[in-house]
Amino acid sequence: MKLLDALSWRYATKRMNGQKVPSEKLDTILEAIRLSASSFGLQPYRVIVVDDPALKAKIHESACQQPQIVEGSHVLVFASWKNITNDHVDSYMSLISKERNMPIEQLAQFDEMLKGFIASKPQELLANWAARQAYIGLGFGLTAAALEQIDATPMEGFNPAEMDKVLGLEEKNLQSVALLTLGYRDTANDYLANQKKVRLSKDEFFVHNR
Amino acid sequence: MKLLDALSWRYATKRMNGQKVPSEKLDTILEAIRLSASSFGLQPYRVIVVDDPALKAKIHESACQQPQIVEGSHVLVFASWKNITNDHVDSYMSLISKERNMPIEQLAQFDEMLKGFIASKPQELLANWAARQAYIGLGFGLTAAALEQIDATPMEGFNPAEMDKVLGLEEKNLQSVALLTLGYRDTANDYLANQKKVRLSKDEFFVHNR
Repeated sequence: MKLLDALSWRYATKRMNGQKVPSEKLDTILEAIRLSASSFGLQPYRVIVVDDPALKAKIHESACQQPQIVEGSHVLVFASWKNITNDHVDSYMSLISKERNMPIEQLAQFDEMLKGFIASKPQELLANWAARQAYIGLGFGLTAAALEQIDATPMEGFNPAEMDKVLGLEEKNLQSVALLTLGYRDTANDYLANQKKVRLSKDEFFVHNR
Repeated sequence: MKLLDALSWRYATKRMNGQKVPSEKLDTILEAIRLSASSFGLQPYRVIVVDDPALKAKIHESACQQPQIVEGSHVLVFASWKNITNDHVDSYMSLISKERNMPIEQLAQFDEMLKGFIASKPQELLANWAARQAYIGLGFGLTAAALEQIDATPMEGFNPAEMDKVLGLEEKNLQSVALLTLGYRDTANDYLANQKKVRLSKDEFFVHNR
């Protein structure tokens, strides 16, 4: 399917039919998220992939009992770093050095710049910056799902503190910022399934050269 | 090109060669952003599309003189709402009513819920929430560009106050949150062009069922 057809086809599915997403499609969606862009390439978030029914039931409780969570196939929880430290930068430099087969000394300037960036900002702002990177990943995941003809509902309506407890995120220095439920639309029971997509016109949404 | 091949092909292009992006490719990328998901479907941001050389030069000055801005074909400025009011919700309800050809009274519950959401949060948090929606759009735009084989560099390294002034955003109740430069890589002069993409392994980036 062509990109714009896929993006027109997708919508925030409100009811799903319980059908499982095949693993090759799931893998494509996850890989798109892993390949997603992030500031400095730091990937300051993780994605929790949940299909265990008992765990989904707990997530359902922490997310206003939205039906897609239990009717969907998988729930992805985007969880970003709560605190960002020089250790994160050190790990990243080691990874680059290994992947690009270059001495770590060659990365000294980048290392210093990134540590300077972290030192210059309060942790609250950095945590928010990390969350925004996760939202880029959410965009990649949504696009990939549409191209794979998998329904996907992004969700912010949940209790983050409860969610973090359910998933043990705090001890991993992570906090839940968004969910993405994957599955198949239940056309008969979803009031939104046959509604026209509503978007601002191009003239309203885009501003040209001013 | 297949999605994962396109996403592997893309990278944060540091130098561009001045070639223009054809209008049909630009339109596809913009349309993907317009079709992007946002919380409640509210689209609480706008995208400024800049290809005027004089305006690009000013943006370049406000964005640490990053070369892609002048070497690229177009700069997209993602600018999200600074303040969110009931007027925004009223306009949105009118749009839904018109697009779906339904009496506005039928939207009373949604209208009330959305106004309640806005009333329950401080404006600073709402502005941040609006910015996050723009980042989803950034993800859609990056994916679309990769599929169109257009290079795209997301940027946060700019002076937002200066940028807002250059583009007259404040009087539109908007604030710049991210840039996306579109163009073509200058392989000969971009040190990153032939570097291996670095990403966390699947085992590190994804957490399964816990």
